Amino acid sequence: VINKIASYGQPGSAPRSEDHIVRLLRERFGGLSASLKRGIGDDAAVFHPAGASEYWAFSTDMLLEDVDFRKEWSGPRQLGHKALAVNLSDLAAMGVRPRFHTVSLGIPADISQRWITDFYQGMAKLAERHHVILVGGDLSQSAHSIHISIAILGETRRKKVVYRSGGSAGDFLYVTGILGRSASGLGLLRRGVVEGDSRSEREALAWHRAPEPRCEVGSWLAAHGFARAMIDLSDGLSMDLRRLGSESGTGAEIYSSALPVFEASRAWGCDPLELGFYGGEDYELLFSVPPARASALERHYPRQYPQISRIGRLTRNPSVIVMKEPGARRRRLPDLGFDHFRIKGAGPEASTGRNNSRKHLGA
Amino acid sequence: VINKIASYGQPGSAPRSEDHIVRLLRERFGGLSASLKRGIGDDAAVFHPAGASEYWAFSTDMLLEDVDFRKEWSGPRQLGHKALAVNLSDLAAMGVRPRFHTVSLGIPADISQRWITDFYQGMAKLAERHHVILVGGDLSQSAHSIHISIAILGETRRKKVVYRSGGSAGDFLYVTGILGRSASGLGLLRRGVVEGDSRSEREALAWHRAPEPRCEVGSWLAAHGFARAMIDLSDGLSMDLRRLGSESGTGAEIYSSALPVFEASRAWGCDPLELGFYGGEDYELLFSVPPARASALERHYPRQYPQISRIGRLTRNPSVIVMKEPGARRRRLPDLGFDHFRIKGAGPEASTGRNNSRKHLGA
Repeated sequence: VINKIASYGQPGSAPRSEDHIVRLLRERFGGLSASLKRGIGDDAAVFHPAGASEYWAFSTDMLLEDVDFRKEWSGPRQLGHKALAVNLSDLAAMGVRPRFHTVSLGIPADISQRWITDFYQGMAKLAERHHVILVGGDLSQSAHSIHISIAILGETRRKKVVYRSGGSAGDFLYVTGILGRSASGLGLLRRGVVEGDSRSEREALAWHRAPEPRCEVGSWLAAHGFARAMIDLSDGLSMDLRRLGSESGTGAEIYSSALPVFEASRAWGCDPLELGFYGGEDYELLFSVPPARASALERHYPRQYPQISRIGRLTRNPSVIVMKEPGARRRRLPDLGFDHFRIKGAGPEASTGRNNSRKHLGA
Repeated sequence: VINKIASYGQPGSAPRSEDHIVRLLRERFGGLSASLKRGIGDDAAVFHPAGASEYWAFSTDMLLEDVDFRKEWSGPRQLGHKALAVNLSDLAAMGVRPRFHTVSLGIPADISQRWITDFYQGMAKLAERHHVILVGGDLSQSAHSIHISIAILGETRRKKVVYRSGGSAGDFLYVTGILGRSASGLGLLRRGVVEGDSRSEREALAWHRAPEPRCEVGSWLAAHGFARAMIDLSDGLSMDLRRLGSESGTGAEIYSSALPVFEASRAWGCDPLELGFYGGEDYELLFSVPPARASALERHYPRQYPQISRIGRLTRNPSVIVMKEPGARRRRLPDLGFDHFRIKGAGPEASTGRNNSRKHLGA
């Protein structure tokens, strides 16, 4: 399975990895204006409208046909849901509550009116649950394929924002939910399993097609000051952990036995642990908590929220180290996360596997 | 020429014109929250962050390869400029000052690093002039073609916003600049003229590739209370005037002899008046002014700003009427404006002609 995942991202020597370009952009556009609190480089930009009682966050994320999805694998309702979910997840990762969004939809001439309506309905249903309002957008005919681009605005609670950069060596690392579930679903689709026979198969497929963004959890963690650094897992734990560590100036150690992996996927030939590290698109939250706050977090964390698991800690050493459990034999985690800009000449077959590097420009 | 323009939009009976879909969406998502002042249906959505001293506007607009542009006809700098310009224009049309923007870029594997850098530089140069800051976005490999999607945030001056809906019968109608200049440039490109020999040809090509959004004018008109209704001319005067009229509950009469058309295009076989009515992508502003304010406007309008021309007035009668000059013989203006959703089966040849109906969802 690791080869499958890695095939999204052929190493290649191309100098234009997205992270590289983000660095260039950041240098070029790094200046902050009076009301801009955070520009390029986090899950969302943060600004303070003059006089406003809260900060606002601004982010965008797109889904492209045959790169991020295939029409044969996801219906319009699921795509509408997912396109908004990935944006909600960006705000969740900062602890910001979503308020308004736009959607730009480019569709080829052969897409039916029904498809369009279903797309908007899938999006609207998720929007309603998260109290985010569609305020505008675009609808355009495209020449080649479906493009979906959403921009989103959110508002903080008590001006609290959690950045990727807030972590300190020693912080405990937690994740919400289960890791590798979406990639397990993708694994099924690649094998031609579109419906799913067992409950696990259906769960994996559903999470791949329509993940649930962790808005409530993110907002709760921020408002109560438990999370010091946070990021959403769009490109897989390995890659997103490196991003959080790099912004926080730390490395990390991860206890593989503590990873909440999707064990059921073993039944269809996946390696749950590999998918837990490298599978993208789970949209779970990874966050760091000062050790002194960990027991309060575990005590007060609402039972009705998705599970959280303590999976490791941030370290002064900048590498990402894996060990079975604290104190066990250590090894470096290979850096195999996928990145759009390493997919070379990817046709539909090679490329549909989501590579949520889109968020790396920061919004 | 009129046939050329009209061929973008074959009438067809397809029920999914974009305006139709916008109406549906508006019914579905029409509810306003406490801080949302204007949702779907104008050039941008407007909201009031709790406590803030100004209103904020939020908008998005995309450019798709082989629909909105061709790589052979526009370089990356021009595309970067134009993609931002069309978004700036949305805010200009409401009198709102641009503050922050994001950009999502989906590009095929064969696009060079240089192309990407140039694109960002074209965008950055325009951004700098308008004091709008790039705060985030996406960079993603696409499977088929280039997609550019920008979202933008702006801030009012003294909480003043000009909507499409603010016009009254009797208001004078003005436009900035020249109409049909962009379509004249497109006409050249379609004839294979990519460089331009004369000054006029170069001017038309430049305006088509990189129009200047009228931010200063829009903001000035709003702040001084001259414009009562305003819209930017993305789909051509005929179509955008109908939109303004429909939102304001009026019709209009236009004096064709007063239209500031691009006369030079006659030299390459265009009909300047037809392009003045139907040519898209000029990104000039169309605005209505109460008659009692017209002479003050004409007196105080800053000389260094682009010219404005009084071209007609809003009427109680809902039709759009054309006459040579006030009091002359009247005829109805045929409704030939182009609309993405009337381009059926448009390959690159048929479709590249911009159809800026993207803004109709309202943001």
